[in-house]
Amino acid sequence: MMDDILKQVQDGTISVSKAKEMLATYENLGFAKVDHHRKKRQGFPEIIYGEGKTTDQIISIIQALKAKGNDILVTRISEDKAELVLQQFPEFSYRETAQILFWKYDQLDKKKSTSYIAIVCAGTSDMRVAEEAAVTAEALGCEVRRFYDVGVAGIHRLLDNIEEIQNATVSVVIAGMEGALPSVVGGLVPHPVIAVPTSVGYGANFHGLSALLTMLNSCASGISVVNIDNGFGGAYNAALIHRLAQKGND
Amino acid sequence: MMDDILKQVQDGTISVSKAKEMLATYENLGFAKVDHHRKKRQGFPEIIYGEGKTTDQIISIIQALKAKGNDILVTRISEDKAELVLQQFPEFSYRETAQILFWKYDQLDKKKSTSYIAIVCAGTSDMRVAEEAAVTAEALGCEVRRFYDVGVAGIHRLLDNIEEIQNATVSVVIAGMEGALPSVVGGLVPHPVIAVPTSVGYGANFHGLSALLTMLNSCASGISVVNIDNGFGGAYNAALIHRLAQKGND
Amino acid sequence: MMDDILKQVQDGTISVSKAKEMLATYENLGFAKVDHHRKKRQGFPEIIYGEGKTTDQIISIIQALKAKGNDILVTRISEDKAELVLQQFPEFSYRETAQILFWKYDQLDKKKSTSYIAIVCAGTSDMRVAEEAAVTAEALGCEVRRFYDVGVAGIHRLLDNIEEIQNATVSVVIAGMEGALPSVVGGLVPHPVIAVPTSVGYGANFHGLSALLTMLNSCASGISVVNIDNGFGGAYNAALIHRLAQKGND
Amino acid sequence: MMDDILKQVQDGTISVSKAKEMLATYENLGFAKVDHHRKKRQGFPEIIYGEGKTTDQIISIIQALKAKGNDILVTRISEDKAELVLQQFPEFSYRETAQILFWKYDQLDKKKSTSYIAIVCAGTSDMRVAEEAAVTAEALGCEVRRFYDVGVAGIHRLLDNIEEIQNATVSVVIAGMEGALPSVVGGLVPHPVIAVPTSVGYGANFHGLSALLTMLNSCASGISVVNIDNGFGGAYNAALIHRLAQKGND
Amino acid sequence: MMDDILKQVQDGTISVSKAKEMLATYENLGFAKVDHHRKKRQGFPEIIYGEGKTTDQIISIIQALKAKGNDILVTRISEDKAELVLQQFPEFSYRETAQILFWKYDQLDKKKSTSYIAIVCAGTSDMRVAEEAAVTAEALGCEVRRFYDVGVAGIHRLLDNIEEIQNATVSVVIAGMEGALPSVVGGLVPHPVIAVPTSVGYGANFHGLSALLTMLNSCASGISVVNIDNGFGGAYNAALIHRLAQKGND
Amino acid sequence: MMDDILKQVQDGTISVSKAKEMLATYENLGFAKVDHHRKKRQGFPEIIYGEGKTTDQIISIIQALKAKGNDILVTRISEDKAELVLQQFPEFSYRETAQILFWKYDQLDKKKSTSYIAIVCAGTSDMRVAEEAAVTAEALGCEVRRFYDVGVAGIHRLLDNIEEIQNATVSVVIAGMEGALPSVVGGLVPHPVIAVPTSVGYGANFHGLSALLTMLNSCASGISVVNIDNGFGGAYNAALIHRLAQKGND
Amino acid sequence: MMDDILKQVQDGTISVSKAKEMLATYENLGFAKVDHHRKKRQGFPEIIYGEGKTTDQIISIIQALKAKGNDILVTRISEDKAELVLQQFPEFSYRETAQILFWKYDQLDKKKSTSYIAIVCAGTSDMRVAEEAAVTAEALGCEVRRFYDVGVAGIHRLLDNIEEIQNATVSVVIAGMEGALPSVVGGLVPHPVIAVPTSVGYGANFHGLSALLTMLNSCASGISVVNIDNGFGGAYNAALIHRLAQKGND
Amino acid sequence: MMDDILKQVQDGTISVSKAKEMLATYENLGFAKVDHHRKKRQGFPEIIYGEGKTTDQIISIIQALKAKGNDILVTRISEDKAELVLQQFPEFSYRETAQILFWKYDQLDKKKSTSYIAIVCAGTSDMRVAEEAAVTAEALGCEVRRFYDVGVAGIHRLLDNIEEIQNATVSVVIAGMEGALPSVVGGLVPHPVIAVPTSVGYGANFHGLSALLTMLNSCASGISVVNIDNGFGGAYNAALIHRLAQKGND
Repeated sequence: MMDDILKQVQDGTISVSKAKEMLATYENLGFAKVDHHRKKRQGFPEIIYGEGKTTDQIISIIQALKAKGNDILVTRISEDKAELVLQQFPEFSYRETAQILFWKYDQLDKKKSTSYIAIVCAGTSDMRVAEEAAVTAEALGCEVRRFYDVGVAGIHRLLDNIEEIQNATVSVVIAGMEGALPSVVGGLVPHPVIAVPTSVGYGANFHGLSALLTMLNSCASGISVVNIDNGFGGAYNAALIHRLAQKGND
Repeated sequence: MMDDILKQVQDGTISVSKAKEMLATYENLGFAKVDHHRKKRQGFPEIIYGEGKTTDQIISIIQALKAKGNDILVTRISEDKAELVLQQFPEFSYRETAQILFWKYDQLDKKKSTSYIAIVCAGTSDMRVAEEAAVTAEALGCEVRRFYDVGVAGIHRLLDNIEEIQNATVSVVIAGMEGALPSVVGGLVPHPVIAVPTSVGYGANFHGLSALLTMLNSCASGISVVNIDNGFGGAYNAALIHRLAQKGND
Repeated sequence: MMDDILKQVQDGTISVSKAKEMLATYENLGFAKVDHHRKKRQGFPEIIYGEGKTTDQIISIIQALKAKGNDILVTRISEDKAELVLQQFPEFSYRETAQILFWKYDQLDKKKSTSYIAIVCAGTSDMRVAEEAAVTAEALGCEVRRFYDVGVAGIHRLLDNIEEIQNATVSVVIAGMEGALPSVVGGLVPHPVIAVPTSVGYGANFHGLSALLTMLNSCASGISVVNIDNGFGGAYNAALIHRLAQKGND
Repeated sequence: MMDDILKQVQDGTISVSKAKEMLATYENLGFAKVDHHRKKRQGFPEIIYGEGKTTDQIISIIQALKAKGNDILVTRISEDKAELVLQQFPEFSYRETAQILFWKYDQLDKKKSTSYIAIVCAGTSDMRVAEEAAVTAEALGCEVRRFYDVGVAGIHRLLDNIEEIQNATVSVVIAGMEGALPSVVGGLVPHPVIAVPTSVGYGANFHGLSALLTMLNSCASGISVVNIDNGFGGAYNAALIHRLAQKGND
Repeated sequence: MMDDILKQVQDGTISVSKAKEMLATYENLGFAKVDHHRKKRQGFPEIIYGEGKTTDQIISIIQALKAKGNDILVTRISEDKAELVLQQFPEFSYRETAQILFWKYDQLDKKKSTSYIAIVCAGTSDMRVAEEAAVTAEALGCEVRRFYDVGVAGIHRLLDNIEEIQNATVSVVIAGMEGALPSVVGGLVPHPVIAVPTSVGYGANFHGLSALLTMLNSCASGISVVNIDNGFGGAYNAALIHRLAQKGND
Repeated sequence: MMDDILKQVQDGTISVSKAKEMLATYENLGFAKVDHHRKKRQGFPEIIYGEGKTTDQIISIIQALKAKGNDILVTRISEDKAELVLQQFPEFSYRETAQILFWKYDQLDKKKSTSYIAIVCAGTSDMRVAEEAAVTAEALGCEVRRFYDVGVAGIHRLLDNIEEIQNATVSVVIAGMEGALPSVVGGLVPHPVIAVPTSVGYGANFHGLSALLTMLNSCASGISVVNIDNGFGGAYNAALIHRLAQKGND
Repeated sequence: MMDDILKQVQDGTISVSKAKEMLATYENLGFAKVDHHRKKRQGFPEIIYGEGKTTDQIISIIQALKAKGNDILVTRISEDKAELVLQQFPEFSYRETAQILFWKYDQLDKKKSTSYIAIVCAGTSDMRVAEEAAVTAEALGCEVRRFYDVGVAGIHRLLDNIEEIQNATVSVVIAGMEGALPSVVGGLVPHPVIAVPTSVGYGANFHGLSALLTMLNSCASGISVVNIDNGFGGAYNAALIHRLAQKGND
Repeated sequence: MMDDILKQVQDGTISVSKAKEMLATYENLGFAKVDHHRKKRQGFPEIIYGEGKTTDQIISIIQALKAKGNDILVTRISEDKAELVLQQFPEFSYRETAQILFWKYDQLDKKKSTSYIAIVCAGTSDMRVAEEAAVTAEALGCEVRRFYDVGVAGIHRLLDNIEEIQNATVSVVIAGMEGALPSVVGGLVPHPVIAVPTSVGYGANFHGLSALLTMLNSCASGISVVNIDNGFGGAYNAALIHRLAQKGND
C-alpha cells in the first residue's frame, strides 16, 4: 500500500497531506481511537469489548463505527448497559446468556450455508462461554450447530453426536473443570479444533488454570487454545477459518 | 491394645519394662528406625524407598526386616544399586523398567485369582510409572492386567478394551501430558479409579502439574489421585482396595 | 455389549433403529443430557451438582431422573434453592451444613451394617466439608461414624479414638490449614484413606493449596487425594470401596 | 460409520467378526498401539513423537506404518537416533535444526502452490522451533515462506515484510522472551495466526511461561496458541487450515 | 553530613543535643512518623499513600507536612475521602480518574517547559492507571503529553504518533492484557522507558502477572518496570529522570 | 508420664479406668474437643481462634475453659461477635484494632518486668497485625514496647530507635509490601527475630507472598518466619522465648 | 553508641578521624567487606557461607577473621574445597555430611551443660540438613541431642522419644515430603520449635515448597520457619534462644 | 522522518526506490537481520546478545556491524567463544567475570567525567551480575564507581559509603536472596535507582523470584526493576539516564 501511495505522491495524483490522511485510518475520540481500517485490513470490522467501558463510551464508539457504515458487535456487555444502548439503537439485538449486542450482521444469516461451525460444550455451567462463542460466530455470518453437555465423564453422549461434529468445517470446544473434552474431540475430527478453557470449577481448578493447561498439553494434534472464558476469541478464530474454507465451496 | 497391656500390668502378667518393650515396635539402626510393627498395623510390611539411600543403608534395612521374617520390597532402586544388593541376596528379583527389587512376595503370585487390578496407561513414555505400579501390585500379591498406550487422542483403543477394564476390582490409571485418561475411564467403570499423573510432557506441562490438576478436577466421580510419578502409591492404594474386595470373594 | 447388539441385529432379533436406541442412554433436556445409564454403568445413579445451575434446571433434571425410577442426590445446593425444590418435592430431605438434598437413598440406611466408613475431621471450621462427605456417604447407603476436631496439634485427641477408626472399612480424612492429619491417620490404619484438603486457612495457605500439597506428598502409604473442599468426591470414592468390601461380608 | 456397518451386518454383506475387525483400527506392538485409521479419521497419518522413545521402538513403529502404506514423519528425534534409523531406511530425509525425520511427504512438495503458510519468527534463538514448524508444514505438503528475526524490538524489520505475510493463508508466529510478536502480526493480517511461545529467555521468563501468557492475553483477535516450543503443533494446525483454504482454490 | 555535624560538635558550634535534634528528621504522630527530611534527601517531599489510611490519619499527616512548608500529594484516595479532606483544605485540587489530591505543586505547572514526559497508554481500560501517572508527573512539576489507546493490535495508531513520543525526555508506557506496548515503544525511542503493567484483563492474565512478565522479559533495551497498576511509581521515576535532563536545558 | 501411670497401675495406686481417665485430657463439645491439658503440656492454656466459629461455639468453648480455671484468649474475633460475648462475660476486655478478647491474663501485667518484647512495625497499614501481636504478648503476660512506622524507606526512623530495640529479649518484626525490615533489624540486634509478613500491598505483592519470600530468604541470621498476617503466632513464639529468658533473670 | 562517640568528640577525648574509624567496623577485601563488629553487635562472629565462593575467597576471609581473634564457622563447603582449606589450617575440623568446617568453637563443647537443643528429623534422606543444624549448634557452643527418622507415618517412633524432646530448651524440627512433623511436635512440647523444611521429595513436592507451606500453616502454636534446607538458620535461631535460656540457669 | 521522505519524493529529490531503500535500515544475514539504524534511532548501536548464538553467527554479526562503522558490544559470551572471536578481532577486549566482549567504546572512557553511575551490589555471589552491569556501562562510555558487598544484613557497610552513592547520577543496585538493598538505597538517594534482582539464593528464593518481587513491591519511591540477572539491562537504562543528565553538565 505504501508503494501505491508513494507512487501517487510522485505522480502528483495525491498531495502529501492527502497521503497522510490516507494513512490516518482511525478516528480519535480522546478516550479511544476507533479503527475504521480494520475491515479492510482484517476482514471483520472493529469489535467493541464492553467490559470496563461506560455506556457513554460504548455509544460514542458505536456512533463512530455506524457513521462509516460498519456492522456492530459489542461483547461482554451486561443487560443493564445493553438496555441503555438499545434505547438509542432499538434496531440492535441483545442475547443475554452470551452478553452480546449486535446489528446488521445477522442479515448474513439469511444465506443458508451447508457448511457450519460446531460449538461443542462440556457442561451446563460452561454454557455462558459457549453462547458467547455461538452468537459471535453467528454475528460474524457463520452457520453454527450447538452440541452441549457432552463432557468426557459420559463419553457416549459425545460419541452419539460425533459424526455431525466431524462434518463441521471447524470446532470450537468449550470445557471447564479438567478440560479434557478438546483432547477427545481432537482425536476424532479431521478439522482444526479451537479449545476454550472456562473458569468453571473450584479448588485446584484455580479459576480455569487447570483446563487451560490441559488444553495446551493435549496429546491430540490439531488443537490450539485461547484465553480462559474467551468464547469470543474462540469463535473469531473459527470464523476466520470458516471463511477460508467457504471461499472454495461457494 | 493399650487396654490389654494396662490390664496385664495390673494383673502382674507382665512387668512394666515388658510393657514398654511391647510398645517398642521398631528397631533403631541409627540412620533409620525400622518399623517391625507395620504388617500388624497396616497389613503390609514396611517398604523401602530406595531413592536417596546408600546401598549400605538399603542392605542394613533389608537385613533387619528379613531377620523378623518380613517380605521385602524396595522401590526406586537403580540397576547399579540393585546389582550390589543382589550379590548379597541372590534370591531376590529385580525388574528394571519398574526399578523395583523384591523377595518372597512373588510366591503369592502362584495362587491364581479370578479378580484383578487393571493398570491402564496413556502413552508409551508413561510405561516406567505404569510398570512401577504393576510390579508393586504383583509384589503385594495381586493379579494384574496391563492396558498400555490407550490415551484419549485415539479413544477407540480404549473403548476396544473397556469391558475387560470394567471387570477389574479397581483401576490404576496412569497418564502424562494433559492427563485426561482417568476422566474418561472414570466415566465408564463401576469401581474406584486411582489416578497417577506422570511428569511426561514439556513446556506448559510444568513437570506433571498439568496432569495432576486435570485429575484433581475430574468431572467424573470415583477418582482419587496420588503424587506425580507415584506408581508405587497408586498400586499400594489399589492393593488395599483389592484386598478388601477379595475377602468377600474368597 | 456391542457384540450382543451386533448379533441381535444380524439375527433380526432387533432392528437397526432399535439398536441405535439401545445406545441412546441419556435424555436431552437441551441445557443438559441426563444420564439414565449411569446406575447400570457405575453402580450409583447420576448425581446433580447444584452449583451454577438454576432452580428450574435442577427441578427439570430431578423430574427426568425420578421418571426413570432413580434415587436423587443434589450436592452444593443452597438453602434458598433447596426450599424452592422442597415445595415441589416435599418428600425430599435437606441437610443444611452439608448443603445436600436427597430422596429415597435414606431408606437404605435402615439395614444396619456392622461395617462403617470413618469420617475424620481436623478442625471445627472443616465441618462443612466433613458433613458434605458424611451425608453423601449416608445417602449412598453407607453406615458412617464421625470423628471431628481431632487435628494433629493435639494428637492425644486422635489417639484416643484410633481403635474405632482402625476398625472402619475406609476412612475419609478432612483437614485444612497444613493438612497433616491424613499422614498421621494413614500411618495408623490398615485400610485405604481418602484425603480431602479444605480451603480453611489464610495467608500462605493459598485457599487450600497448602493442605492439598501436603496430602499429595504424604510419606504414609495408602492415601489418595481428591480436590480441595470436595467432601462429596471423598465420600463417593469411599462408598465405592465400602461396597466392594461389603460384598464379601454380606 | 457405525450405521453403515450395522446395515451391512443386517444385510449379511459382512459377518459379525468382519464388523469387529473393521473397528480394529490399530496394531498392538505391546509398548504401543499404532493407529492405522488416523489418516482416514483425521486426514494426516499418525506422526511419531521421537522424544522418550528408544531407536528400536521408533523403527518398529515406522515398519508398522510403512507396511500399511503410510507416509512417515518423526519429530523430536536427535541426530544420533536419526542416523541409526537412516541406516535402515536410507531413503528418509533428516533435517537437523528441526530435529525431524520424514519420508514420502516431500513428493507433495513438487506440486507448486501459489498459496503458502507464513512462518514468522522473532529471534535467532527461536529458529530451532521455527524450523520444526517449517519442516513439519513442508512434510505435510504445504508451501512455506520463512520470515526470521523480525521481533518487535525493531518493528521496521516486520513492517518491511508485512505485505508478503498478509498474503499467506495462515501464519505461524514463533517468539520467546516477552512473546509480543503475534499480537503485532495479529493486528495486521486478515488470516488466522497460530502463536507458538518458545522457552528462549531467562529469569522471569520462567522457561516460556512469559511468552505463553502474553500470547493467551493478546489484545489482537484471531490468535490461538499451542504449547511452549511446540513448533510441530503450530504447523499441524496451520496445515489443517491451509488444506481447508486450498480446497477452494484448486 | 555526619562529618559536618561531628566537626561542629567538636568546634563547639553546636551542642550534642542539637546534633541529635538535627538527625531527628521526622515527626512522630504515633500511628506514623512523618518524614520532613525527604525533600532534602530525595528532592521531592514525602507523598501520602491514601489506601488503607483513615481520613483522620490523612488529615493529620497533611497538617504535619503543611506546617513545615511542604507541598502535598495524596495518591489512591477515593472520592469520598477526598471530599472530607477538601472541606478542611478547600484550596486543594482533586482529580477523580487519577484518585489524586494535591496542593501547591500545580503552580510549578505555570513555567511552560519545552521538554515533556510522554504518557503512552495501550487501551481505554488502562486510563485509570495512566491518569495516576499523568497527574503525579504534573503535580511533581513536569510537562506531560498523553498518548492514549495506541495498543499494539492497531500498530498504525502508535506509529502515527511516534515522532512526538520520540521527542519526549522519558516515556511512561502503560499496558494491561499482554502488555506488549513497552517493547514496541522501547525499540523506537532514544530515551528511557518506564513500563507500568496494569491488572486489566481476565483469565490467564492473572491480575496483571501476564503484562508484568512481558515487560520484564522485553527484548528491547532501555525498559525498566514498576509494580502492577503503579502509575504513581512510573511517574515518580520519570520525574526524577526528567529533572536530571532539565538541569542541563534550563 | 506413661511410666508413672503404668507404675501406679501396677502398684494398685490407681485403677485401669482411672489411668484411662487421666489420659482423657480434653472435653468433647461435639463440634470441638477442648484441650484442658494444654497448659500443663505447653505452658499456655488453649487459645480460641475466633474466625470461622459462631458466637455460640465461642461461648461454649469459653465456658468449658473457664470451668477448669483457665485464662481466656480469643483471637480474630470481630467487634460484632465480641459484643455478644461481652454481654455474657462483662469482665472480659476487647481490643478492637487487634480483634482480640481476653480475660484474667492482664493481671500478670501488674508485675512490671524490666525485660520486654519489641514489636517493630514497618508501616501504618500493618498496624492491625502489629496490634494482634502486641496484645497477644501482653495477654500472655509479657511486657511489650511498640516501634511503629519504621520501615526501610526511611532507615533513619529505625536507626533512631535501634538501641531500645537491641535491648529487648526478642523482637517481633512486622512488614508488608517488600517486607525488608526484618533483614535490617536482624543485622542489628543480638536476639532472635520473629518475622511476620503482612498482606498489605498490591499487584506483584500477591497478598503477602512477596513479603513472605523476602523474610524466608533473609541474608541476616537469627530470623524465623510465621504465616502471612499471623501476628498472634509471632507473639506466641516471642512469649515462649521471653519466658525462657526471664526464668534466669527473675 | 553514637551518643558516647559524640560526647567523646565534644570532650576532645577522641578526634573526628578517630570517631570515624570507630564506626569503621569492617575490613574491605575488595570482593567482600568482613564484619569484625558482628560478635559485639550480635553475639556470634560473622559466619562464612561457602557456596558460590572460591577457595581463595574463603581462605582470605578466614585469615581476616582469625587475625582479629574470631572463631571460624564455614557452612555449605564441599569436601574438595574443605581439603584445600585444611592444608592451610590443619587445626580446623570438617564434618562431611553437614558440609561444615569450623575451628575453636568446639572448645566451648567441653563445659557440659544439662540443658540441650533437640534436633528432630523426619526421614533418613533429611539427615544432610539435620546434620548441618546439629553441627552448627555444636559449633556455636550448644549441647545437642539427635532424634532421627521419627516421621509422622510411624507416630509411635516419635511418641517413644517425646519426653526427652519435651525436656529440651528448644527444638529444631527437620522434615521433607509433606513436612507434617513440626505440627505434631509443636502440639506436644512446651518450648519454641524452629521448623526446617527440606527439598526431599518429588513431583508435587516442588523442591520443598510443599513442606514449607505445611510448616507456615501449622495449626500448632509456637512454630516458626526458616528457608528450605536451611539447617544452619534453624540452628542459629535455636542457639540464640538456647543462650537466652541458659543465662538464667547458669 | 516519513514526512521528509514523502516531501523529497514529491519534490523529485529522491526516487521511489531510493525512498524504500532509506527505510531498509537493516541487513539480512538469513539467520539475523542486523539493525544498522539502531544508533540513529536509539543513541546506542545494536548490541549482540551472545547466549544461544554460535561463534560463527556472532562473528558474522560483528563483521556486518563493523562494516558500517559501529562500535561492538557482545554480552553473555563465554570465555571459549570469546577466545575464538578474539583470534579474528585481536583488538577487542574481553572481561571474564562480566562475560562481555567489546571494542572501541572504551575510548570514550578517556574523557574523564566528574559525574558517575553507582554500581551497588549486596553480596560477593552477586558480583557476576554487578560486573556485567559495570562493564556494560563503561563500554557505553559512562564513568562507573563500584560499591560491593554492602547488603542490608550489615547496614553500616552501606551507610559508610552512602554519601558517595548519593552523589551519583543514577544507581544500579544488584541483590539476590531477599533483594532488600534497593529499598534501603532508594530511601537514601535523590536520583533514580535501577534495581537488578539476581538468582543467587536457594530454596524459597525460587531462582530470583523472591528478590524480583521484593524490588517490584518496594515501599521506596524512585525504583524501577529489570529482569533477574539482567545486569546489562540495568546498566543500559542507567546509561540512557546518565546521558540525559550529562547533556546539561557538559
